[in-house]
Amino acid sequence: MTITAAVSGASGYAGGEVLRLLANHPEVEIGAITAHSSAGRRLGELQPHLLSLAGRGIVETTAENLAGHDVVFLALPHGASAEVAAALPEGTLVIDAGADHRLEDPEAWFRFYQSEHAGTWPYGLPELPLADGSKQRGRLVGARRIAVPGCYPTSALLALTPGFTAGLLEADDVVIVSASGTSGAGKAAKPHLLGSEVMGSMSPYGVGGGHRHTPEIEQGLSNAAGERVTVSFTPTLAPMSRGILTTATARVREGVTAAQLREAWESAYAGEAFVHVLPTGQWPATQMVVGSNSAALQLAFDPHAGRVIVSSVIDNLTKGTAGGAVQSMNIALGLPEGTGLNQLGVAP
Amino acid sequence: MTITAAVSGASGYAGGEVLRLLANHPEVEIGAITAHSSAGRRLGELQPHLLSLAGRGIVETTAENLAGHDVVFLALPHGASAEVAAALPEGTLVIDAGADHRLEDPEAWFRFYQSEHAGTWPYGLPELPLADGSKQRGRLVGARRIAVPGCYPTSALLALTPGFTAGLLEADDVVIVSASGTSGAGKAAKPHLLGSEVMGSMSPYGVGGGHRHTPEIEQGLSNAAGERVTVSFTPTLAPMSRGILTTATARVREGVTAAQLREAWESAYAGEAFVHVLPTGQWPATQMVVGSNSAALQLAFDPHAGRVIVSSVIDNLTKGTAGGAVQSMNIALGLPEGTGLNQLGVAP
Amino acid sequence: MTITAAVSGASGYAGGEVLRLLANHPEVEIGAITAHSSAGRRLGELQPHLLSLAGRGIVETTAENLAGHDVVFLALPHGASAEVAAALPEGTLVIDAGADHRLEDPEAWFRFYQSEHAGTWPYGLPELPLADGSKQRGRLVGARRIAVPGCYPTSALLALTPGFTAGLLEADDVVIVSASGTSGAGKAAKPHLLGSEVMGSMSPYGVGGGHRHTPEIEQGLSNAAGERVTVSFTPTLAPMSRGILTTATARVREGVTAAQLREAWESAYAGEAFVHVLPTGQWPATQMVVGSNSAALQLAFDPHAGRVIVSSVIDNLTKGTAGGAVQSMNIALGLPEGTGLNQLGVAP
Amino acid sequence: MTITAAVSGASGYAGGEVLRLLANHPEVEIGAITAHSSAGRRLGELQPHLLSLAGRGIVETTAENLAGHDVVFLALPHGASAEVAAALPEGTLVIDAGADHRLEDPEAWFRFYQSEHAGTWPYGLPELPLADGSKQRGRLVGARRIAVPGCYPTSALLALTPGFTAGLLEADDVVIVSASGTSGAGKAAKPHLLGSEVMGSMSPYGVGGGHRHTPEIEQGLSNAAGERVTVSFTPTLAPMSRGILTTATARVREGVTAAQLREAWESAYAGEAFVHVLPTGQWPATQMVVGSNSAALQLAFDPHAGRVIVSSVIDNLTKGTAGGAVQSMNIALGLPEGTGLNQLGVAP
Repeated sequence: MTITAAVSGASGYAGGEVLRLLANHPEVEIGAITAHSSAGRRLGELQPHLLSLAGRGIVETTAENLAGHDVVFLALPHGASAEVAAALPEGTLVIDAGADHRLEDPEAWFRFYQSEHAGTWPYGLPELPLADGSKQRGRLVGARRIAVPGCYPTSALLALTPGFTAGLLEADDVVIVSASGTSGAGKAAKPHLLGSEVMGSMSPYGVGGGHRHTPEIEQGLSNAAGERVTVSFTPTLAPMSRGILTTATARVREGVTAAQLREAWESAYAGEAFVHVLPTGQWPATQMVVGSNSAALQLAFDPHAGRVIVSSVIDNLTKGTAGGAVQSMNIALGLPEGTGLNQLGVAP
Repeated sequence: MTITAAVSGASGYAGGEVLRLLANHPEVEIGAITAHSSAGRRLGELQPHLLSLAGRGIVETTAENLAGHDVVFLALPHGASAEVAAALPEGTLVIDAGADHRLEDPEAWFRFYQSEHAGTWPYGLPELPLADGSKQRGRLVGARRIAVPGCYPTSALLALTPGFTAGLLEADDVVIVSASGTSGAGKAAKPHLLGSEVMGSMSPYGVGGGHRHTPEIEQGLSNAAGERVTVSFTPTLAPMSRGILTTATARVREGVTAAQLREAWESAYAGEAFVHVLPTGQWPATQMVVGSNSAALQLAFDPHAGRVIVSSVIDNLTKGTAGGAVQSMNIALGLPEGTGLNQLGVAP
Repeated sequence: MTITAAVSGASGYAGGEVLRLLANHPEVEIGAITAHSSAGRRLGELQPHLLSLAGRGIVETTAENLAGHDVVFLALPHGASAEVAAALPEGTLVIDAGADHRLEDPEAWFRFYQSEHAGTWPYGLPELPLADGSKQRGRLVGARRIAVPGCYPTSALLALTPGFTAGLLEADDVVIVSASGTSGAGKAAKPHLLGSEVMGSMSPYGVGGGHRHTPEIEQGLSNAAGERVTVSFTPTLAPMSRGILTTATARVREGVTAAQLREAWESAYAGEAFVHVLPTGQWPATQMVVGSNSAALQLAFDPHAGRVIVSSVIDNLTKGTAGGAVQSMNIALGLPEGTGLNQLGVAP
Repeated sequence: MTITAAVSGASGYAGGEVLRLLANHPEVEIGAITAHSSAGRRLGELQPHLLSLAGRGIVETTAENLAGHDVVFLALPHGASAEVAAALPEGTLVIDAGADHRLEDPEAWFRFYQSEHAGTWPYGLPELPLADGSKQRGRLVGARRIAVPGCYPTSALLALTPGFTAGLLEADDVVIVSASGTSGAGKAAKPHLLGSEVMGSMSPYGVGGGHRHTPEIEQGLSNAAGERVTVSFTPTLAPMSRGILTTATARVREGVTAAQLREAWESAYAGEAFVHVLPTGQWPATQMVVGSNSAALQLAFDPHAGRVIVSSVIDNLTKGTAGGAVQSMNIALGLPEGTGLNQLGVAP
């Protein structure tokens, strides 16, 4: 079986990571590679690490150039996906790594993105526990439109969902602080993202509830809880290229024990190839998962504060974007879910 | 006026930073430089950046060697300070950069340090707002024993205290997540602190309420609030040598406005040379304060979550340890408070 | 075809990287995993990124434990390989990632390693151009003992050998300066390798001709040149976990042109999957090859100084150690040379 | 004595560092702060670490705004200094941190900068040994125009000049490889300088003799040697914000001994407060000098290669730019040379 795939947004970090994974995917043949201002250049000029694809040319991102492939990956600025997707045949698998089709609530979309909602697609986070005891992957089988989760929501939802589906957590006061590598901020050359500025420095941004991933996290947790979950989310920028460490904490319901908490998380992810609840006493580090599609988690119950604290790590570009996209593609097309994906991080 | 100063623990990061600051202090003459296993070596072998002191010899940490100076800085493992301090004259200013004399509650000490409490000394955080409207610096004037705060408590208390002294925050659900540079973990060669392990990686530790700075943070906030404050504190290790970014969040009392919050913080630190509430819209970064004695803060009110989020940055070794120690010394001895200290970070 | 492989030295960085690559190798089944002081522990405690192998136990490094596999990888301190290898059957493929069997000259061995020479094995650098116009890979086909090159020699020999086999360079004054990530210094916890010490810092070591990779570089270049090549080699430590950037420069023979130089390098590596001479104007960066088995090169002729300068980058742990080992295994056993190896670096 | 100083180019890294040092200089009052596109903004928006100057306004860089100060620091793009300087009174001390007035040879200037030569000013490297046995500082006393050396030349000339003034080195084959922190590349937002690109990565640039600091290094060494010195210079970019490590190597004249070499370097810098030849066996690291005006050196003789290898470290922004500028100012105006400057690096 050979699947042909087109990749848009190929000059950015998300598009580059999709290409890196597809180049290593045994069933995929990479077709059109598209971008906007970089059209006409060789891929090697923009993504020098994609050595085996260096000579490939970049064409303009248009529906014409993307059509005629089995799968189309969209790694476009938000607001740009809907039009492209509408012009592609319904039978083409379209996987949107952007934000356009993640939110269910048009009002939340408008509040955070100031534009009209483009509709909701199945959410590409296969391991997500659902309120009915099943997993999200069931909704991806045979899908032809998939919305890849944001990188912070991937880490936050994997961290906290098991506690909500199991009914162990209070819904009204979740606090999440995440530290992300700079690739999450994209490849546009902005002064505050210069190496000189970020090396040796940690800084917060989007503080106070304004980050666009906040409603996406609340949506996922609310669906799991069966009630409205309120989240205080603070992202920070860390001096590393890749990786997200999320510290997620929620108040534990009266009477819940540490053993119940551990059991909820362990059973939620039992048998998952890419989500690892670490043995007691071992804490995750982002380095463990760099370049891989894995997430690693650990949790602790702090009875003094009445909170469970869950630490989760992912690679924001792999599990948090391109890996989740390829995993979702595998499921949608009936391939073994882990095809072309790596469980093991590049460490140290 | 020339003050003679002895520095113990000179082979470690805290001791090295005390020496760096004292070498630049116009009123101080550095006397005995002491350590334990490094006694007998030249300082330049252990602290190669202290170029002007490179030829100075290190002697054994004993009360005899430390005696006869106006000031003695202790940068020793916890549990070691009390005995040394007891052997020094009452008129000698002893400044303990370790934990031994910070906690007021012997039970909390025992629970977190598993040893007998050595007594409480005035707390060396001059800018700390007190419940009575004064500042902590008043308690340091003329003092001859001073306990320098821990690095995390320095950043956390500067971040949240103004809200508690002003009565704007709920006491029962403070959540703090801090990211620290690796120098906070000391100079002992442990595998998980190797450069290969920490570069490109974020990781949590001491999760679930177990970190020894937790009771110190709760003590400070409780004193400010006039009631028991409960804190969930999670420290994380960031890929940088120096700096702490603290994200501190507390629930805001019913009816409190953003303007009230801003006013509380701005008035608390008005006129402070080393604590800077940044203009609205500007967020702190640890790089701003590297090598300096400054703290920089910003806050945001998230009405959706009902929380205020305060970001604070310090250099863990300077304001968080040695700078706080020298600043306290200046106050205790009647020197201008900022003598020998730098307001400006070394950036980029 | 399933190949069984044992890996010794599994607690270190080289052994960990061999395991990472073997876990992704479709034809290999990992058998014994051995170490010395870590015997009896789970692999996950020591190599937390090897998530799919976390539960595997570590046994003692003995010939008994290593026997009975098709391939044995040795990642041991120098001096330890010979005895283990001698106890393994001649038909077992033994691949030594250590230094013991790289040097041809017993005197050079003694001068740099102060011990008796253990004999010379075929050199596991398949792409190395030889004086007779062939490549080193021919000597690995069917081999049962292979010495993997050192990481610096891999980068230096790939950089300069084409100029010597083509007769374009003077033999008497080669100057090489390399910058290596800290993983090249191993996992032993030494103070100068702490994250606090290496982040934000570059430092030289082994200056003045004393580094043990010097005779190995001279050996390779001398074989290529057909005369004694003299090298001044200076290694430096860079603030990154992985990667080597080598700046290698030699005086160009009278009358040689830039075009001849370029032609020599391009023809030497034409068709190689893992050694890439970049298009003119593009310079390598270590990030391009992190986690991959690729080397990337660029060269410039400086007629003013009469020198060619070649920049080469590799991942010291992959192409420089474990990747070279697996590539050599593939050749020795008749597998496609690139099986289980990645051409594309994990960037950014 | 209060000296008034104006600083142009205040939005960049060089200008920011000049301001940082002047803010700590006891005899200087900072007057006009100028820039080009940032005129009209507060300094705190552009240089957030300059906390005590945050409220100062930035005005346009014009001769009018710069006039009326005792000292004017120019940190402008090359080609912009001459016109501004010409419009300032002869009695004003003008210190150019840019390249315009460093080179003595108009042809070399034209070849590397493609513009007309603006004339040569006294070279602001006080510790530089001269061929006549004196030091460069003698030429700065009372000067009213000073050209601050480039950052790479500062490190390279301090490293090698003692060997040439002592007549110990061959002039025809110097090889220099330097690794610089990214602040040396300036604050303009270019994609290859993004944190995501530079963290975990080393890369060369300007290879093959094209870097503009090459003729400046050759000029300094040639003056020292009394004959034309030829240099192969390769700069590389290292994953750190500040610091330069230079590895400089030259062939040693027949019969010269290691003791003669050591004696030449030690005597050249005996008594210098800011240039430190380290004790035998200790190698420099850039971290030792971060934020300070110090250089640290070590040398080794490699008799096998016939070369001396000198390692030198500086902070490119301090000793390599702004520190050298302030030190030169102190000399020109008759202040103690080290006023306002720090000998000790901020480490770890």
